[in-house]
Amino acid sequence: MSTNKRKIINDPVYGFITIRHPFILDLIDHPWFQRLRRIAQLGLSHLVYPGAIHNRFQHAIGAMHLMQLAIDELRLKKHEITDEEEVSLLAAVLLHDIGHGPFSHALEYALIEGVHHEHISEVLMGDLNAAYQGRLTMAIEIFNDKYPKHFLHQLVSSQLDMDRLDYLARDSFFSGVVEGQVGAERLIKMLNVVNDQLVLEEKGIYSIEKFIVARRFMYWQVYLHKTVLSAEYMLVHVLRRAVDLARKGVELFATPALHTFLYGQYDKQKFLSDPQALAQYAALDDFDIATSLKVWQSHPDRVLSMLASSIVNRNLYKIELQAAPIDEQYITDTRKRLQQKWSLEPDEIDYFVFTGKVDNRAYNQHKEAINILRKDGTIAEVAAISDQLNLAALSKTVEKYFLAYKNR
Amino acid sequence: MSTNKRKIINDPVYGFITIRHPFILDLIDHPWFQRLRRIAQLGLSHLVYPGAIHNRFQHAIGAMHLMQLAIDELRLKKHEITDEEEVSLLAAVLLHDIGHGPFSHALEYALIEGVHHEHISEVLMGDLNAAYQGRLTMAIEIFNDKYPKHFLHQLVSSQLDMDRLDYLARDSFFSGVVEGQVGAERLIKMLNVVNDQLVLEEKGIYSIEKFIVARRFMYWQVYLHKTVLSAEYMLVHVLRRAVDLARKGVELFATPALHTFLYGQYDKQKFLSDPQALAQYAALDDFDIATSLKVWQSHPDRVLSMLASSIVNRNLYKIELQAAPIDEQYITDTRKRLQQKWSLEPDEIDYFVFTGKVDNRAYNQHKEAINILRKDGTIAEVAAISDQLNLAALSKTVEKYFLAYKNR
Amino acid sequence: MSTNKRKIINDPVYGFITIRHPFILDLIDHPWFQRLRRIAQLGLSHLVYPGAIHNRFQHAIGAMHLMQLAIDELRLKKHEITDEEEVSLLAAVLLHDIGHGPFSHALEYALIEGVHHEHISEVLMGDLNAAYQGRLTMAIEIFNDKYPKHFLHQLVSSQLDMDRLDYLARDSFFSGVVEGQVGAERLIKMLNVVNDQLVLEEKGIYSIEKFIVARRFMYWQVYLHKTVLSAEYMLVHVLRRAVDLARKGVELFATPALHTFLYGQYDKQKFLSDPQALAQYAALDDFDIATSLKVWQSHPDRVLSMLASSIVNRNLYKIELQAAPIDEQYITDTRKRLQQKWSLEPDEIDYFVFTGKVDNRAYNQHKEAINILRKDGTIAEVAAISDQLNLAALSKTVEKYFLAYKNR
Amino acid sequence: MSTNKRKIINDPVYGFITIRHPFILDLIDHPWFQRLRRIAQLGLSHLVYPGAIHNRFQHAIGAMHLMQLAIDELRLKKHEITDEEEVSLLAAVLLHDIGHGPFSHALEYALIEGVHHEHISEVLMGDLNAAYQGRLTMAIEIFNDKYPKHFLHQLVSSQLDMDRLDYLARDSFFSGVVEGQVGAERLIKMLNVVNDQLVLEEKGIYSIEKFIVARRFMYWQVYLHKTVLSAEYMLVHVLRRAVDLARKGVELFATPALHTFLYGQYDKQKFLSDPQALAQYAALDDFDIATSLKVWQSHPDRVLSMLASSIVNRNLYKIELQAAPIDEQYITDTRKRLQQKWSLEPDEIDYFVFTGKVDNRAYNQHKEAINILRKDGTIAEVAAISDQLNLAALSKTVEKYFLAYKNR
Repeated sequence: MSTNKRKIINDPVYGFITIRHPFILDLIDHPWFQRLRRIAQLGLSHLVYPGAIHNRFQHAIGAMHLMQLAIDELRLKKHEITDEEEVSLLAAVLLHDIGHGPFSHALEYALIEGVHHEHISEVLMGDLNAAYQGRLTMAIEIFNDKYPKHFLHQLVSSQLDMDRLDYLARDSFFSGVVEGQVGAERLIKMLNVVNDQLVLEEKGIYSIEKFIVARRFMYWQVYLHKTVLSAEYMLVHVLRRAVDLARKGVELFATPALHTFLYGQYDKQKFLSDPQALAQYAALDDFDIATSLKVWQSHPDRVLSMLASSIVNRNLYKIELQAAPIDEQYITDTRKRLQQKWSLEPDEIDYFVFTGKVDNRAYNQHKEAINILRKDGTIAEVAAISDQLNLAALSKTVEKYFLAYKNR
Repeated sequence: MSTNKRKIINDPVYGFITIRHPFILDLIDHPWFQRLRRIAQLGLSHLVYPGAIHNRFQHAIGAMHLMQLAIDELRLKKHEITDEEEVSLLAAVLLHDIGHGPFSHALEYALIEGVHHEHISEVLMGDLNAAYQGRLTMAIEIFNDKYPKHFLHQLVSSQLDMDRLDYLARDSFFSGVVEGQVGAERLIKMLNVVNDQLVLEEKGIYSIEKFIVARRFMYWQVYLHKTVLSAEYMLVHVLRRAVDLARKGVELFATPALHTFLYGQYDKQKFLSDPQALAQYAALDDFDIATSLKVWQSHPDRVLSMLASSIVNRNLYKIELQAAPIDEQYITDTRKRLQQKWSLEPDEIDYFVFTGKVDNRAYNQHKEAINILRKDGTIAEVAAISDQLNLAALSKTVEKYFLAYKNR
Repeated sequence: MSTNKRKIINDPVYGFITIRHPFILDLIDHPWFQRLRRIAQLGLSHLVYPGAIHNRFQHAIGAMHLMQLAIDELRLKKHEITDEEEVSLLAAVLLHDIGHGPFSHALEYALIEGVHHEHISEVLMGDLNAAYQGRLTMAIEIFNDKYPKHFLHQLVSSQLDMDRLDYLARDSFFSGVVEGQVGAERLIKMLNVVNDQLVLEEKGIYSIEKFIVARRFMYWQVYLHKTVLSAEYMLVHVLRRAVDLARKGVELFATPALHTFLYGQYDKQKFLSDPQALAQYAALDDFDIATSLKVWQSHPDRVLSMLASSIVNRNLYKIELQAAPIDEQYITDTRKRLQQKWSLEPDEIDYFVFTGKVDNRAYNQHKEAINILRKDGTIAEVAAISDQLNLAALSKTVEKYFLAYKNR
Repeated sequence: MSTNKRKIINDPVYGFITIRHPFILDLIDHPWFQRLRRIAQLGLSHLVYPGAIHNRFQHAIGAMHLMQLAIDELRLKKHEITDEEEVSLLAAVLLHDIGHGPFSHALEYALIEGVHHEHISEVLMGDLNAAYQGRLTMAIEIFNDKYPKHFLHQLVSSQLDMDRLDYLARDSFFSGVVEGQVGAERLIKMLNVVNDQLVLEEKGIYSIEKFIVARRFMYWQVYLHKTVLSAEYMLVHVLRRAVDLARKGVELFATPALHTFLYGQYDKQKFLSDPQALAQYAALDDFDIATSLKVWQSHPDRVLSMLASSIVNRNLYKIELQAAPIDEQYITDTRKRLQQKWSLEPDEIDYFVFTGKVDNRAYNQHKEAINILRKDGTIAEVAAISDQLNLAALSKTVEKYFLAYKNR
């Protein structure tokens, strides 16, 4: 596909996406990037929002499209972005999630202890850079904020970066939760740069508030929706059970890539020093997990089969989500009740009743805050400047506690 | 989930979908219906249109929603539809594809000889009816046009049925091919019934033409897009190779459900008389195929591994699509050239070079034609009544021939 | 047009609007209702938002459409609304603005002292009721909250009434200010009735916050946009000048209807006791004002001509809008400076420099508050129940002060 | 407003429109351009489609926006467009309708005999060019196809020009006739230039068909909708009556600008040689006509008052529209019947019964045809190259005949 012609992709969110650079097309064609087609952007959220089955491949291309718009806009405003910087920005945002594992973030510690997906992204980007003779060097510098122009990094990673703009727009679009719409293309029209800092022009102040309110909506309505939490934690638990069984030598159906991690007892050091493991990781996606789950429904281990079957057939645990920590006595009583109901051994009960905490801060005033370019030319942090905005309230961290259990 | 409350589903295409009947919720919760979450509506079309990853679960629910709108509309127009008929119509359209196998129609003969998915749907609906004590009897009668009110069947199956309205609307939406938009909700507002026939009111005549033009767009731009054809025929070929190898006793990775059909040598009679086979079929979905493909990339059989790898990494065969049959000499030359290029045995060449024919008729004047209720109260077939419409032209069958081959 | 057939209207905001009742069609055909075609919904806002040229005719029909949806929804939830109540609700919302004068609210005191447009609406509805032999009696009772079922009145007039839902949706749509979108049809799906009170089901709590945030956006971005304020106050001033000149006997071009009010010296008593005046009022619309302004551009009175020309050619006064009252000294200095700049007489300066105050409260917790039906069946005021919503902040009244002056 | 900053306009059709050039802002601020705010794009179509109240000001700015997109796209494809050419293209399309008179084309012969609005546009553009010291010279050359680069003219005036793309998109948007949507921004992405000819890339061939089908829809559903025709011809007739009365010396209310043309007996020569007439023309808009119509409702001349009142209160003539010419006997009978019914004098009957012919050709293969750039690099006329398109059928001229008469 790497010709010297431009390529146009149909995207339901933005319409046509034009890819202007052959090197970007090469990256998209790479099997590691194609793998992202098989990793859902929102994990199991589609069990609540059936439309939310979009994947990280679409998201990465969408973020790249917004980056192109932002570059065009900033150039119109006479900020220099060289051709090499342009391609590097596009590559950086395209590859920002290249190391993402199957399903949601929650899963990443279940198979390999102590390895964050961002670290794997770094390793994979390094390997790609070697394969492409250093053409990704500048992209990696921008990604790691080592490149002299700081605002380029902010386009890739900040509270108003193209990653975030695309995922909010896209997650809202596919889930059908219109309250989460963010007007990404409008916000980009208001970007500017002052003193090497990305800023937003003052006329966009209401749009920013809408963006932050939308972000909070998406957290509590979609990402941390209680039924979604239930499904995702069930997935973590079924994989933990599978790892435990594997370590005890129990035989389990698994695709080869999944088999590697179930039986391989990988920690960070072992994983990073084993090129075979990295290759298997780069072959692992949602399909390995989902297929194995289906087979595990008929495994003799009752914990494994009950969990697998509950997820596959969407018979999810009931979950109670509240502002205060769950009462200890209530937890104890629930455990007792369900141990009896489901005839569980004491070491099995943790798979059927569990607790946790989730939190979200829609906007952080103190870390890479969003800055506004006022009409008088001064710069101010967005939450600080307006008496009528509620951004201060939105920058508070909200915590919630949950208890989940199998009750049917 | 079967409570006596209504349930609301967020749908990106129509907004909120309200489910009013507990029995419909029960059907949706059934594992056979949940399986449709794992069968893509458009098979491998997402390799060309990345957004087109929606599944048959969403489609069936969307079609059910349109059915509800149509029922409400016809009742407003004083046509009687009883409560039992309502639930039966909703169930009939919900289950119309319950027997669909993994991926596209093309695949259905590759694993089980001679069994059409509609036949399996019938068997599964029968089993569900037994499980639900006959509550699906009327739905099945409507589905099979055995119910006295013919127009109910037409809502489920005709050239203007709710299945078709939803899939065009949904496929257009997710693929981002806006030319395929059909305005399903507008068309439904113009439905009426005369002499037990579903008709469209005359003011909708332009909308109908738009609908038929949109249908043709979708065929040639999406369903029969040449790259999509290439991918789907490659999938058929890789499965045929797997079946051949299995019959020769070669060992292949396969999920249990897929294993059953690779090694079981099922034909229609054997399949229908084996309850275990039906159970395995009801567990088979896109994930079984996709996971196996990934593993087959490193299988020692070169044909299998090359085909599998080409699909997984989107390195698709080149395809030439044209109005005239492909020149025989050109086929022969291409086969010769590629046999040499890829160092193939004579019995392998058919996997790397193949031909085929596709056709489409956007509208069929002669079979369940779309009828218009004119302002003077008479009924007329839509293509017949207007000198300015091009529907006659659109009701011609268009055939195209293709040659596909691995050239990189 | 009053046949016994349903009529369908194309509406860019909602798609098809179906009118099911012949009497509603009769009301729409009445010249007093047709007059609303000639009164812009947003006055001079189109000078800032060129798309915002929609009129009160469209708005009234849109609100009626939402009322129909709300009626259908509440009936589905088993709340009784009789056929007569249905028609009365539709008529009430259709006619709620029948007495609105030309342009915005600001104008209504400029021509007739002390008469609020709502009072005129009442008079006109009474006259229509007489003309239609009492068929509007129930509509008027609902409108005035004299009808036993209070929730019907709330559908017509409350913080979540169909008027408000339509105008926010419509004003946002036509102005292109997407931040003001409110998802009217979604909100209606969540309406319910408890103890004769209109409530919103708890799952809609985020939508309500979005609605209130959107409302605030629309106030500050559109309705109270400073350039819009400038234009509207200029319009008030030019009419005051015209009235002053008329009272001094100066001859002015005016359409007959406008002439009546320029020269008639109407106050409330004189106006209401003069049937001729009411007839003239019912003939007065934006076109009378706009046409006269165009002619006044060449009137010998310099104040009149300068003001008229500035509005017609969109050469608007500069306006400074701020949270604190304008500094008195600054006002004095500005007046002095501009008196000199434009060579004004002392009694003319007030037409070229003026001040004012605007305020808005996005949500009022204390008066017809929005009530939520919680999942446990209890009712609570929306701002009171959630620690994560910012509605309390949004229910504060925000005031702003402005200084406007001709500086070019 | 002419600063050196960019200005952003909210447009409901395209979102943000950015104006990059101060000179373009100056043109927009000119009173002649501001006048277009007061001329409805679709005349009286809003009597059928209430949303269709958009004006020529919005349309001209929309067309300018599409021109900017087209310029950006062609530059990306390495076609040179200089900065001066850019501003000239923007100015040319902005001013293409500057001479348009009130309401629709139908009206232009009613007040001034023999002067086409395009000729007045030319005169006004010449005057503006003088006022702006020749800065419009290149724009006028492009407009008149005197500029060496022919494809620049095609962007302004051809079957795929920016004027047409905007008006179809905009008319469809505001009327709510979604069948007319054209995907203007998508079509622009497929523009290219070969041998100084504007062409469309082959992948856009379905979009073009959709565009032409949409165009036909808009003609028959909106522009030539029979009720719209009725209203527009009634408007022509009422103005003819007013002119006749004026010539007889009867006194009529009229705004000064309208008075000029009612009483001035202008033909082309007199009009073009009278600078005062041109100035009055530049002050004439829909508001003059509409206001006068309202007053004429109570004029003693019964023909004038009946016509005026019928339009103002939307009591439109019945119209019969058909493929064949109206039967002469039927016309005679209708005239006789209505002469009696309305007690008309023989010379009055033509105002109450009239006939006419309308025609439309959705696409013209023979004049500035749309050319396709095929994948093999050759150029072909769009209707000629595809066996599956119906464009040949669409390029036939369709004629219809009508009879309109006052029957209530």
